[in-house]
Parts: sequence; C-alpha cells; structure tokens
Amino acid sequence: MEHELIRWLAERVRPHPQVPLGIGDDAALLRFSPECQTVATTDMLMDGVDFVLASDAPQRIGRKALAVNLSDLAAMAAKPVAALVSLALPRAGRGGEGALALAQQLYEGMLPLAEEFGLALAGGDTNVWEGPLVLSITALGDVAPGKAFLRSGGQPGDELLVTGSLGGSRIAKQFNFTPRIREALRLAQIAAVHAAQDLSDGLLLDLSRLAAASGCGAELHLAQIPVSPAAVEWSFRSNSGKSPLEHACSDGEDFELLLALPPADAERLLREQPLAAPLTRIGRLTAEPGLFGITADGTRTPLAPQGYLHA
Amino acid sequence: MEHELIRWLAERVRPHPQVPLGIGDDAALLRFSPECQTVATTDMLMDGVDFVLASDAPQRIGRKALAVNLSDLAAMAAKPVAALVSLALPRAGRGGEGALALAQQLYEGMLPLAEEFGLALAGGDTNVWEGPLVLSITALGDVAPGKAFLRSGGQPGDELLVTGSLGGSRIAKQFNFTPRIREALRLAQIAAVHAAQDLSDGLLLDLSRLAAASGCGAELHLAQIPVSPAAVEWSFRSNSGKSPLEHACSDGEDFELLLALPPADAERLLREQPLAAPLTRIGRLTAEPGLFGITADGTRTPLAPQGYLHA
Repeated sequence: MEHELIRWLAERVRPHPQVPLGIGDDAALLRFSPECQTVATTDMLMDGVDFVLASDAPQRIGRKALAVNLSDLAAMAAKPVAALVSLALPRAGRGGEGALALAQQLYEGMLPLAEEFGLALAGGDTNVWEGPLVLSITALGDVAPGKAFLRSGGQPGDELLVTGSLGGSRIAKQFNFTPRIREALRLAQIAAVHAAQDLSDGLLLDLSRLAAASGCGAELHLAQIPVSPAAVEWSFRSNSGKSPLEHACSDGEDFELLLALPPADAERLLREQPLAAPLTRIGRLTAEPGLFGITADGTRTPLAPQGYLHA
Repeated sequence: MEHELIRWLAERVRPHPQVPLGIGDDAALLRFSPECQTVATTDMLMDGVDFVLASDAPQRIGRKALAVNLSDLAAMAAKPVAALVSLALPRAGRGGEGALALAQQLYEGMLPLAEEFGLALAGGDTNVWEGPLVLSITALGDVAPGKAFLRSGGQPGDELLVTGSLGGSRIAKQFNFTPRIREALRLAQIAAVHAAQDLSDGLLLDLSRLAAASGCGAELHLAQIPVSPAAVEWSFRSNSGKSPLEHACSDGEDFELLLALPPADAERLLREQPLAAPLTRIGRLTAEPGLFGITADGTRTPLAPQGYLHA
C-alpha cells in the first residue's frame, strides 16, 4: 500500500529547491537557508477528537492536519520548507473504500495548501491498522536568527493585537482556515513583534500562556474583541448559554495570530492595516500577573483562563 | 495533562547546543551545522501492530519508537540532532494508571537513548483519546553535503555487506536494539559506501528495494548470511515451518545496516572489521535485474522479495 501511495504521490509532488531528496528513501534530505535557524513543529490529529471521519470529508481532514502545523510555523514567523506526514489508516478506509483511497483523499487536501505556501511534502510513514484514523504531521521552516516570534518576549505595556475575528470556528473555519503565514512574514519585516502565538485553544487560555511565558499579566478590553459572525450564530444555535463574546474568548481553533508589540508599532499597524486580515487591539500586557477583563464601563474583573467569562 | 508532562520533561531534558529553543513554545528552534544538509525521518508506531501495550513495558515501547527513527538516521549516515514526539494516549493509560503516567513511562524509555546519541527531545504534541496508543516520532539529523548514504547509489559489482546478524528479532532485539548510528558515522569516514538502508522489513524485501532504487539486481550467497541465534531459536519455537535462514531473510525488525560498496572497500572492511558490530559479506549487486540466491553448491535460483525462501 505504502509503495503504491508513494508512486501516486511522486506524480503530484513538485521538486523543491530546498529538498534535494524527498519521498522514497529512509529519510528526506533538506537544505535550510545557510544563515537561518530551523523551526520544527508537530501536531497529531485523531478521529473523534479533531475531526469525525464518518462525516468530515477526508480532503478537509488532510488539509486541516497540515494547516494547523502551518499555523504553528506562522506563530514563529517561519517560512515553510517541508513537512513529513505519518498516517495510521483504518484498514477499511472510509465507507469501505480501502486505506489507499483514504490516504489519497487526505493528500488531495494537503497538496494545494502545500503548493500555496511553497512547502514540500518530503516524506512520511504510512500504516494500516484496525484502529481509527490518526494523522501526525511535522512541519519544518526557516527563520533568520533572532527573528522568530516567541511566546516569551512580551513586555509590560506591550499592546495585544489579533488578526481576523474569533469564535464559532466549529461552524466556520475549523477546516478551511488559512494559516497566517503571509501575515506573520510581513509583520516580521515591518514591526517589532515582541511575542506571538497562534490561537488554537481559545483566546483566554492562549493569552494566559503567552503572558505567563513573558512573565507578565494581561488586560483584555472585552468590548474590543473581534467577535466573528460565526460566534454569534453558534451562540444562538448551540444553546450553550454562552454569549457570542464568551464563544470568541474560549472556543478555540481560531488559528489567528495573537501579537504583543510596543505601543508605537501597534498604533502604526492599526492605522495602516498592512495585512490582508484586519488587526484589532484587544488589550495589553501588564507587570501585574493574572488575566483581567475590562468592560465598556471600565470595570476591571479577574478572568479565569479556561473558565466562564462574565462579561 | 500536556502542561504537567512538559514541566516533568523540562527537568529531565538537558540543554543542547543545536537547540536554542526546545519544548514549550509553538515550535522548536534548531541550529543545524551551517555547511550541512538536514536529514528528516518519521515513524509511527501503533498498539497491536508494532507493540502490545497490555504486555510490553511502556519504557520499552518508548525506546523502540525513538530507536527505529534513529535507525533511519543511521541508514543515511546522519548525526542525530533533535526529535519531536507526538502521542495519542489512551485515557486510562496502561492498567488504569492514567495517561500522564503512561506518557512519563514512554519518555523514560526514550531519554537514555536520546542522551546516548546526543539527540535533543525538542518538542511534540501530547493528546489523550479513547483509542489505542499511537506514537509518532520525527528525528532530525545533519550530514555533510554529498555524504548521506542513499538507497540509489549502488552500482553493479558492488559488494553487499550487513552489520550484525539477522532474524528472530521478535524474541530478541525488537525492543532493545542499538541503532547503528556509530557504525554508520564511522563507515562514512572510512569507506566509499555507495548505497545503504536499514533492515526493517526483512533482508529480501529491503535488499530488493535498495537494488531497485540503484537500478540493479542482486545476488545473495545464502550460506554467508549471518543467521542470528534468535532466528535458530525462533525457527524451532514458532513451528513456522521456516528454516533459521528463511527467518533471517524475511523476519524484519533487524535494524542492521545493509551496505553496497566497491569490492576494494568491502575487502578492507571485512579484513579490518573496524566496527563494534561484525561486518559480513552476503552478496553483490548485479547489472541483471532481479534477486537471485546462490546456494553452497553454486546453484543460482530466483528469489521472491517477500516470498518463501527455498534454500
């Protein structure tokens, strides 16, 4: 099966200047830019947790598995170079079509995204078993030394910005979001980003991580958080008892960038809006630890990173 | 859970000169040697396929998952640099001990091996689910340009050598083999290795791959194949109806190196035996395609790569 898949893939994968040796040997050979550091990230997606094979199209699942890895590269401002794809395929495939057909459909979802971001699918490991579908992808990129966005570089007084809008991902962009690679690479050129991360587990939880890694606390201006139309719809449809704002703060899988920048840079970016995605100021880092919400009337209340948001 | 595991790991992972940023951010930052190419390989191991969680100790499973990846680096003559480890952990863990305890035991098997080969555990993704245990590891190493052992470099007339002895891995070294990193790095310095691969799926199948990638066929001197004591024991115990030699040719999971070298280099290596593992000549590459076995009386018969060996 793996042999057939490799032959099928070989016709669909283009040569890449940074990949002297791709799929087919014991390992891939990659050539990173000589002056650069390598950024390496990995994400595993499992049936029933990150997708439902019985109802989600395999192409969308494959695309998502690659996109979440690209989102991590974006969070570090890394240029994508290559990815390795490991699959544990259920023997019957999807709807009994077999494991090879399922693998091909997963790759059909990955290939256009890889092409779009100049990423080589350089290797992997394809397995068949009696268990549910598991995809594990490792993405590698490069970044000039000292230019990677880390979570730990934030400083008290830094403004917090996000790209795009938040919440309701499960009825909107969960499968078809565009990783913010272009936005991150542009930001790395034009602004002094102190810290960044991609929003995968919900704004409050992810922000609490960035703040903690930076040795800071954070204040959120709740009325300024860009609530997505999907968060509004999901609040209505899901009977969750949560407001659209609460969904925007905790839903996860937004795959937007959270950025901490010095005020002057933040002001300029907000004025110029140089990215394809809108940038919105949502708060700032503070010397005082902890996470606080500021409502429209100026009330300041502590927020629990994962908890219920009273806003 | 992931947060707790990261804290636990942080106390056990040493700083590595080529890993400016390890576990804990969106991605790891790695610094490969500036003049080198990067070798990247990935292997996924699943419960019920590559191990049995109910009966194999998690430490041995963790060690094996890392060792098979290191074996692929060895097959390319790459110096290990870093690995990323993704886990899908059954919620109950092993024997109901919980997912965190299982993750720690898996890592306890990896850490000494990583230390032994100067490899940094630089990141990963830890998940809990209702399915069986899956481990997916990506290993990264470096190699000077043009120095990687490929499968495709073999030439007609090259002698075929293997390290160690073959067969019966499932009752012997399947879990505790030492990846042939040191042997490969030494060979890269002292011999003109034309082609190499690690033996993971059985000598005949792996040799047929190396020969095909090199545009060659191969002849095996069946009486010269180093049959391990475990192959003898397994032939006796398993009631497989296969001879020890047949087990040595098809069992798989030997994780020895198969090498193709020009005759003068092969002669010298066989005479000097410069490695900790013995080197044995088992045959040669031929211009004629296909796989042939030569018995002690000189009879030459075609061999099926995966099939039954009449010897």
